[in-house]
Amino acid sequence: MPSALHCRTYPVLLVAAVLLSACMGSQRTEAPVRPTAPTAATPAVEPDPGLLRAAARTELRGNELGSMWTFENAPLDQWQERYGFRPDEAWLDHVRLSSVRFGTFCSASFVSPDGLVMTNHHCARSCVEAVSTEGNDYVVNGFQAETREQEVVCPNLYLDQLAEIEDVTSRVRAVTAASDRETADAQQAMRTRIEEECEAATDFECQVVTLYHGGQYQLYRYRRYSPVKLVFAPELQAGFYGGDPDNFTYPRYALDVSFVRAYNPDGSTPASTDPHYFRWDDDGPDEGELVFITGNPGTTSRGFTVSQVLYERNVRHPFLVDAFTLRHDALQAWAARGPDQDRQVRQEIFGISNSLKAYGGQLGGLRDTLLMARKVRWENEFRDRIRADAELQRQYGDVWNRIAALQPRLMELRPRAWLYQASFLASPHETLGNTLVNFVRQSALPEGERMQQFRGDALERVRNQLTTQTLDASYSIPLLANRFEMARRYLPASDFVNRAVRAGETPLQAATRIINGTRLGDVAFRQEIMNGGVATLEATTDPLLSLLVRMGTEFADVLEEWNELTAQETVLEGRLAQALFAAYGTQLPPDATFTLRISDGVVRGYEYNGTLAPAFTTFFGMYDRAASFDGEMPFTLPESFEERRAHVDMSTRFNMVTTNDITGGNSGSPMIDREARVVGIAFDGNIEQLPNQFLYDDAAGRTVAVHSEGILEALRDIYQADRIVNEIEAGSNR
Amino acid sequence: MPSALHCRTYPVLLVAAVLLSACMGSQRTEAPVRPTAPTAATPAVEPDPGLLRAAARTELRGNELGSMWTFENAPLDQWQERYGFRPDEAWLDHVRLSSVRFGTFCSASFVSPDGLVMTNHHCARSCVEAVSTEGNDYVVNGFQAETREQEVVCPNLYLDQLAEIEDVTSRVRAVTAASDRETADAQQAMRTRIEEECEAATDFECQVVTLYHGGQYQLYRYRRYSPVKLVFAPELQAGFYGGDPDNFTYPRYALDVSFVRAYNPDGSTPASTDPHYFRWDDDGPDEGELVFITGNPGTTSRGFTVSQVLYERNVRHPFLVDAFTLRHDALQAWAARGPDQDRQVRQEIFGISNSLKAYGGQLGGLRDTLLMARKVRWENEFRDRIRADAELQRQYGDVWNRIAALQPRLMELRPRAWLYQASFLASPHETLGNTLVNFVRQSALPEGERMQQFRGDALERVRNQLTTQTLDASYSIPLLANRFEMARRYLPASDFVNRAVRAGETPLQAATRIINGTRLGDVAFRQEIMNGGVATLEATTDPLLSLLVRMGTEFADVLEEWNELTAQETVLEGRLAQALFAAYGTQLPPDATFTLRISDGVVRGYEYNGTLAPAFTTFFGMYDRAASFDGEMPFTLPESFEERRAHVDMSTRFNMVTTNDITGGNSGSPMIDREARVVGIAFDGNIEQLPNQFLYDDAAGRTVAVHSEGILEALRDIYQADRIVNEIEAGSNR
Repeated sequence: MPSALHCRTYPVLLVAAVLLSACMGSQRTEAPVRPTAPTAATPAVEPDPGLLRAAARTELRGNELGSMWTFENAPLDQWQERYGFRPDEAWLDHVRLSSVRFGTFCSASFVSPDGLVMTNHHCARSCVEAVSTEGNDYVVNGFQAETREQEVVCPNLYLDQLAEIEDVTSRVRAVTAASDRETADAQQAMRTRIEEECEAATDFECQVVTLYHGGQYQLYRYRRYSPVKLVFAPELQAGFYGGDPDNFTYPRYALDVSFVRAYNPDGSTPASTDPHYFRWDDDGPDEGELVFITGNPGTTSRGFTVSQVLYERNVRHPFLVDAFTLRHDALQAWAARGPDQDRQVRQEIFGISNSLKAYGGQLGGLRDTLLMARKVRWENEFRDRIRADAELQRQYGDVWNRIAALQPRLMELRPRAWLYQASFLASPHETLGNTLVNFVRQSALPEGERMQQFRGDALERVRNQLTTQTLDASYSIPLLANRFEMARRYLPASDFVNRAVRAGETPLQAATRIINGTRLGDVAFRQEIMNGGVATLEATTDPLLSLLVRMGTEFADVLEEWNELTAQETVLEGRLAQALFAAYGTQLPPDATFTLRISDGVVRGYEYNGTLAPAFTTFFGMYDRAASFDGEMPFTLPESFEERRAHVDMSTRFNMVTTNDITGGNSGSPMIDREARVVGIAFDGNIEQLPNQFLYDDAAGRTVAVHSEGILEALRDIYQADRIVNEIEAGSNR
Repeated sequence: MPSALHCRTYPVLLVAAVLLSACMGSQRTEAPVRPTAPTAATPAVEPDPGLLRAAARTELRGNELGSMWTFENAPLDQWQERYGFRPDEAWLDHVRLSSVRFGTFCSASFVSPDGLVMTNHHCARSCVEAVSTEGNDYVVNGFQAETREQEVVCPNLYLDQLAEIEDVTSRVRAVTAASDRETADAQQAMRTRIEEECEAATDFECQVVTLYHGGQYQLYRYRRYSPVKLVFAPELQAGFYGGDPDNFTYPRYALDVSFVRAYNPDGSTPASTDPHYFRWDDDGPDEGELVFITGNPGTTSRGFTVSQVLYERNVRHPFLVDAFTLRHDALQAWAARGPDQDRQVRQEIFGISNSLKAYGGQLGGLRDTLLMARKVRWENEFRDRIRADAELQRQYGDVWNRIAALQPRLMELRPRAWLYQASFLASPHETLGNTLVNFVRQSALPEGERMQQFRGDALERVRNQLTTQTLDASYSIPLLANRFEMARRYLPASDFVNRAVRAGETPLQAATRIINGTRLGDVAFRQEIMNGGVATLEATTDPLLSLLVRMGTEFADVLEEWNELTAQETVLEGRLAQALFAAYGTQLPPDATFTLRISDGVVRGYEYNGTLAPAFTTFFGMYDRAASFDGEMPFTLPESFEERRAHVDMSTRFNMVTTNDITGGNSGSPMIDREARVVGIAFDGNIEQLPNQFLYDDAAGRTVAVHSEGILEALRDIYQADRIVNEIEAGSNR
């Protein structure tokens, strides 16, 4: 399953979002898909006439693929033209070497000659948790090392600085074999070999990065800094002010910043980061000013064709939003029953709320005619370019139609796959029932052919679970009702899941009948099935178990067809990426790969809520929000902000928005001006930025950052963190 | 034309919106419609299957028609059930008598025994303008009478207190005649007679109010207070903080409040309003608390059928939003040319921005599936009720289909009527050209048959205009181009306006050719046409004039058909209203009629912008917004707020939101608690409230009010208006 690897490598921006699924943006690599019945009318995979008319009226802005530039292909001419700014090699090297990748999921930067590193509070949070003690929860109270000796090691944390870049495209491409498939394998082997040679010959960590989906291969050599120690973190309530509701939004008032320090391997002396660290700009930028963000954006899907985006808009996103909405409401109702029930589901509710916000925001963009029109227009222009060159047309002209031809069937299979198997639709009754089905089927196989969790001791643990776990019908009924409701909305009436609901029954009535009628809650019954083996299982008339058995069988068929179709699609996507590279070369930035990029943008407010969102917020606003909500969570003032209220210059700029192009992985990215001075730190995107997964748009999509002036104001007047302020200022004055 | 009367009688809520057109919500009574050619595919007048499915899933909440209750039919049982509150007659009388209608467009209330009246700043604004002097612009500087002697008369202002109510339904209904039409006329005569008898016999102003579109007739007797003097008004920058951008939005920070005083007719002694005035609640309400608003909502269209709402959604609103967007952009481009040009169009840009916000907000609601689904569901339930009673079904069962049958043709005629004539699409070239056409045609008639403005001296003024006015081609070209663009979007290709654009021409190229080619800018040419009369006019080959002549002719045809169809629709609407009254009686509130209503609601925040809008804002927020925008207009702090900054308790509640049901005319409405104490004053609705024109929804639609605590904080600590504060507090302590 590629999904696991994918999720580990490409994380998302926000601490909260991590709970959901790191595969949010990726269409075909998420939770494994398995599948049967024929569906009703399938939604369109071609833009409707209204959208085509809108596309004809739309002007392209030349930035549809965003601005996640690689350092080796920084668009100097474009910057010169747009901003009158053309950095030299020394500037680019300095900026690259002052930036670091933070562990496996964030970005950061050096801000003093002695290894002081700035990142987001939510990036350092796991370190803050790890160094907390019985007596002092630094997540709640914040952490501040008064002296260098008080700095504490963050377990397992390291920082990677992109030291050298070498183009190895020709070396990889030189490898060929008899078939496409063999060539791909051989090229993969070559990439591994290049990495191994590099690591053997140097002290660097080495990675061959695939850009433009195979248009380019670059060998990135990283200098790794470890250990890393914690220097300063504000309270969670300051770093994550506004909590889940304010997540993905703006105007905003969060001090989402922390400081750590890179040490030499001995762990006792700070790493020297002279001269490559960012100086500080106390005043920060003005509205309209050019700013850059360096960091490691995780993944984008801007290479999707229009038909693939329509699949997202018409099937995948609506399904997920509906499913999460129903589940959210059911869990909320459950939580309302009492404190035990609340504890039981609180974490899942939190994760679902976050997913809902993310998918809802993306869906809003997908349903926005203007945005979609621009996607259509962009694709038309790309296709025109290919058409204009006979050789390119011969090589690639068929790709779009072939990808589109796959979508109708994928649109039918997708809801079926989810409805037969997805864990985000399951109740405990179903989950346990599926475990029982698997136990029986796997036990029937020779041990060597079984899945890992059904071998030896593991099998006994499963057996133990099946013979002890209790089930609560009142918890499972509404969840099963939701599955039937989703089936009613997304599957044809003839589908067996819909037929499980009797004529005249509501989904809730059917779920009540089935859950109350099943014997799955009865350990003796489960034992009976286990003893009886496959034949007993398949002959069961238990209303729930028989449904689960059927789902498992049908899912296997759906999965087989799904895998066949998506394998075809992957080959076509590779050709599409090559077409893009052939037509545009490095004029366009490649999709994100969790490697170092530099994005240009400007500080700019936007229209929201019928009025204007300012480019900046001030400390006044945080005190307003706290007082407006009467101090209730998650809008309670952090204790320090309350205590030091009289010392705060309220009109100081606190957070701000810019048009820079970021996504998951960019958390902690420094924001710098043309003198490469720190003017802020990126920590979120607003809700309007979520559709940028598929097409960059800066009408209202914004990066949200903490302002450099606000950071210093808080460090000085609230936290009295003079040691850090002095270090930053001394470094800036050198 | 009913439109003029309609606009005068039913004004809209917001000062800014007044500039647009008071007929915003009213479908068929707006600017006169005149009309020709056959159109392409007409949008649907029946809900699509998706909407029907959504409607089937929707639950009604029992408040779809809102809560603009009349005092004579206050829903006591419903209040008892919802809030455990059942006011007695004395409470209702007291509240009614403490409320007043403010002039011809606002609401207000007594807040002391000596005639002190509270209303919105934007309601008193025309008085503040009128009493301003050469040396002191009170609109800019604010006004405060330090003594009673300094209070100044507001010219032409009066206050109407609803003193007595008498049901005259049976008297009106007793009048019948041979035909429907004659009955209607005779009943109208009876209503006038009842009003005249009432005014002859008493000192009251009398009005027979038509409720439920004829379901009920009530005789309202008003005590009129005049003169009215100005007591206090803050600066415009405080009363209208955030200006046009923040209009129709929340969170909000506006001190939209003023005080005037009712005097006895002699003008020297204050009217005694003891005991019927509202006491003050310093603390205001908490979130979730029941509050009432009394006031005079202007007009709502909640009686519209689904097919009529689909006409709004699919044709009228999109057309207006498109037209205003194009015009706004063209005027903005013109204003950017220099200060003279800016002055020339600034006021129109302001009005258009406001209209765009209002129509855009309504269209957003109309396009919201959940909202429309509830409208469909509500109508289905209403129709089921009619169907369930054979006699009602016989009388009214056909109404919906008959109304729906009219819509397709109205949908075709509407864009044509606008494109051939609407002033909001016209350039000065076209306006002058139309004047020329009218001059020639009217001059040809005997004086007695001409329209007023073409008789005697008036005719000479028109002639003078035609022989002197100059025209600027560069101003007119983009406006004419917009008309062609709108025609391209909304009329079939075969329409003569579309054919005026030659094959291969863009709208802008066509407009440039026609404006540059016309001789309408040439006074001699205009003289020639005037001299030549109708024959010359109709034979003209001038590219613009010939187009205008054709438009005029075709418009006359469209108008004739339009008037015929809308007359049929009006009769059907009357029957529909009677059906509603027959099915529900006074269980439901009647549509708004700019007469006194009482609306129940609760203080409640809502979801917005991906997060939560708090129920309250504080003074912190205004200082935040000012600092965020660097003090730029319209977010500049009022001078008084700047000067007295150190004296303000920033965490005081300032504005708030509630679920009360208001619309234009409610401006200045007091907000009171169950002890009939003032807890605030309504001054706006948020953007989510705009679709309430067609269906009440409190998911996010909110009334925006100034909080009673915030008013006192400002009066005391910013304006040091001790005299008013003391009067309010003395009255409250009696």
